[in-house]
Amino acid sequence: MKAWTDYLEHNKDKFLNELIELLKIPSISARGEHKPDMIRCAEAVKQSLLASGADKAVVYETKGHPIVYGEKITDPSKPTVLVYGHYDVQPPDPLELWHSGPFEPVVRNGAIYARGSADDKGQFYMHVKAMEAMVSTGTLPTNIKFLIEGEEEVGSPNLAHFVASNKALLDADVILISDTAMISKDDPSIDIGVRGLSYIEVEITGANRDLHSGIYGGAVANPITILCQMIASLHDDNNRITIPGFYDDVVEAGIDERRLMAEAPFSESEYMADLGIGALWGEKGYTTGERTGIRPTLEVNGIWGGYTGEGAKTVLPSKAFAKISCRLVPDQHSDKITQLLIDHLHKITPSCVALKASLHHGGEPYMTPIDSDGYRAAARAIEATYGKPPIPVRGGGSIPICALFEKELGLKIVFMGFGLDSDNLHSPNEKYDLYNYYKGIETIPYFHRFFAELNNE
Amino acid sequence: MKAWTDYLEHNKDKFLNELIELLKIPSISARGEHKPDMIRCAEAVKQSLLASGADKAVVYETKGHPIVYGEKITDPSKPTVLVYGHYDVQPPDPLELWHSGPFEPVVRNGAIYARGSADDKGQFYMHVKAMEAMVSTGTLPTNIKFLIEGEEEVGSPNLAHFVASNKALLDADVILISDTAMISKDDPSIDIGVRGLSYIEVEITGANRDLHSGIYGGAVANPITILCQMIASLHDDNNRITIPGFYDDVVEAGIDERRLMAEAPFSESEYMADLGIGALWGEKGYTTGERTGIRPTLEVNGIWGGYTGEGAKTVLPSKAFAKISCRLVPDQHSDKITQLLIDHLHKITPSCVALKASLHHGGEPYMTPIDSDGYRAAARAIEATYGKPPIPVRGGGSIPICALFEKELGLKIVFMGFGLDSDNLHSPNEKYDLYNYYKGIETIPYFHRFFAELNNE
Repeated sequence: MKAWTDYLEHNKDKFLNELIELLKIPSISARGEHKPDMIRCAEAVKQSLLASGADKAVVYETKGHPIVYGEKITDPSKPTVLVYGHYDVQPPDPLELWHSGPFEPVVRNGAIYARGSADDKGQFYMHVKAMEAMVSTGTLPTNIKFLIEGEEEVGSPNLAHFVASNKALLDADVILISDTAMISKDDPSIDIGVRGLSYIEVEITGANRDLHSGIYGGAVANPITILCQMIASLHDDNNRITIPGFYDDVVEAGIDERRLMAEAPFSESEYMADLGIGALWGEKGYTTGERTGIRPTLEVNGIWGGYTGEGAKTVLPSKAFAKISCRLVPDQHSDKITQLLIDHLHKITPSCVALKASLHHGGEPYMTPIDSDGYRAAARAIEATYGKPPIPVRGGGSIPICALFEKELGLKIVFMGFGLDSDNLHSPNEKYDLYNYYKGIETIPYFHRFFAELNNE
Repeated sequence: MKAWTDYLEHNKDKFLNELIELLKIPSISARGEHKPDMIRCAEAVKQSLLASGADKAVVYETKGHPIVYGEKITDPSKPTVLVYGHYDVQPPDPLELWHSGPFEPVVRNGAIYARGSADDKGQFYMHVKAMEAMVSTGTLPTNIKFLIEGEEEVGSPNLAHFVASNKALLDADVILISDTAMISKDDPSIDIGVRGLSYIEVEITGANRDLHSGIYGGAVANPITILCQMIASLHDDNNRITIPGFYDDVVEAGIDERRLMAEAPFSESEYMADLGIGALWGEKGYTTGERTGIRPTLEVNGIWGGYTGEGAKTVLPSKAFAKISCRLVPDQHSDKITQLLIDHLHKITPSCVALKASLHHGGEPYMTPIDSDGYRAAARAIEATYGKPPIPVRGGGSIPICALFEKELGLKIVFMGFGLDSDNLHSPNEKYDLYNYYKGIETIPYFHRFFAELNNE
């Protein structure tokens, strides 16, 4: 047994309790009223780094929420692993669907339930605890740097400036991110790509005030109806996106990649049963794995307008709103797709209403080369603890900042995530299995070891 | 000058201040938490009837909100006018668009601003004050009964039972309702019809929980997208409603009626300027007046689903909701149209989602014969105070209980409304012009006089 594994075994309760304290902080980056919680959470992350063996940890102010940086430099000549993560979380709504408070962490059935448990507090914190285990047992073969931001869930608006201004500070040999999921506990996998994102909000205005639907209904455009018509027109009968030029830059996956993807363990019936759905949905001609991995999508993340309270109100509203986002794949570009989407919406807006469309945030798609030292170190680490090599998969989510890291720091990124698709990310009852949490802490030191070995070859 | 007009002139401030007190009570029937306000408002209506000359006033409990009954019986041999109105109001949302509190009545530019000022507190209260003026001056030529309910805005679920159980109490010769609008202050009009209503709520469920739009998006149906597609399909390119059978029972207006309607004063450019819209909308082949008067409509009164808060959340929601209502014209029937609508929605629901559709409330369309004593008395009364005869128009709104009154009590209904389309009914900044309020109080005694005369002929 490795020394760090032994250390982990003796500190399991401590590692869990520390995570629980972090999960209690409602660090919701999207909500202005949580600004004090964001500052409190950044400070807690800094203290945890210092308590876990970091030589140095600093909270950097930004125009938005603070960024936490920390480091443990054992020897400047050794390779350096830069760990990126985020301490901010998604809003917990709808609150009424949680079985326990989103910020009152509870362990049930071997998992810890709380907003941020898997995305991403529980995952970046594995690296903090792995550092502690390695430092405490004298088994850290690399230098470690931590870059833990507080704005990932709102598109990292201030990270680009920070990274560009702190290149020397962030100098490293690889970026390691745990913010993705595995196929299952028994089928370890590594994401070799994340999708890009274009996220916009639209506002449709009809009349200059809410109207009585009896007096004006039928003669004045209803912005809800018009918005529904516009949204409905964004997919054709084959569920392909109808925005002109949308697919122009999509790299079609080759036969080989599609065959490889088809070999990944997947049960359509289990998938449907887990979700409680009677039929799948998606772009004609592609499998579920392809639809979520290698194809771009357009989803309405929110819609509202008119009277949404209890009972009935016969109103013809003045406005209707929607939040719409596209997931992008190589070689689509976020700026271009955002513009195509907004231009198209303007084009299809009828003259009886007015459209306002604005960008929330975007991010480029990213691919990790499987022949890089970072990927090879991660694959070997997972094989060491899981007993089988990981399957390379294309993840459906987005980590908008990846393309920036590569551009500014010239580094490859490795996604070594320990979550599960069933973790309810961004949903009520988010959880993180303790098995995965501890397995991650056990696996990470192997990554450092193998990465150091590959770097010395 | 008539004695009652003199009395009105001397009591204008008192009549306004009393209305203001009534408008301060937030009697929102749709919201459970306002139950105590409903009881308080019913009591206030009862007290105002007693203080204004009624012999008797009673608050009747129902399964929902109370009904207020009051009467002034001068002589059983004289004709009896039954005044129907409602003390409940629509919810005031969206609150942020009000320039002053919805339940903090303010007089601005000659109008009183408050929820319920025109619909219907200000209008039924004219009858209370007209009774006071007539009783005080010994000029009441009829008996008066008042039936003021508290559930009109939620479909009058308990009125039918009350009416059926109290036929003797409500025995009268005509029903007089002030809950509609005139074309303008200079163009008095009388509604000769109100539209019926079918109001439903739909819930579309996709997956059994909210999902991450990156991990599941593109492979699992988004209930918002599906709901939008379903709503979009309910109108065709000519903005005709696509529900099979929807128009089957619609009585097409004849050439003569359409010509008469076209003669009513209406400026399309003023209408559009007032609403701030760049183009009209509606069923092809019909004018704006026809679209709101003699044609049935389908409006989405509210829609919601997914994340609707500040910022961005990449969620693929489990559910999406809409409130949908149809306005009906003779000879459509509310129950039939509700069933057609719900059946059609079930038919077009794809297998990847589930639909739940439920009725909020309904009501039948109603027409008043212009050769009835009631209509003739109202027309003469308006001519007496406005100096010109009223134009008969078809109103777009709904007073669901009309058909019931006719069936249970065998009475004709006269809509003598003094509101304006610009009163912002069901919208922020609802108002009622003091000119109309006082003009109504002056006109109502003429109605009683002419109705008594016609009854004695």
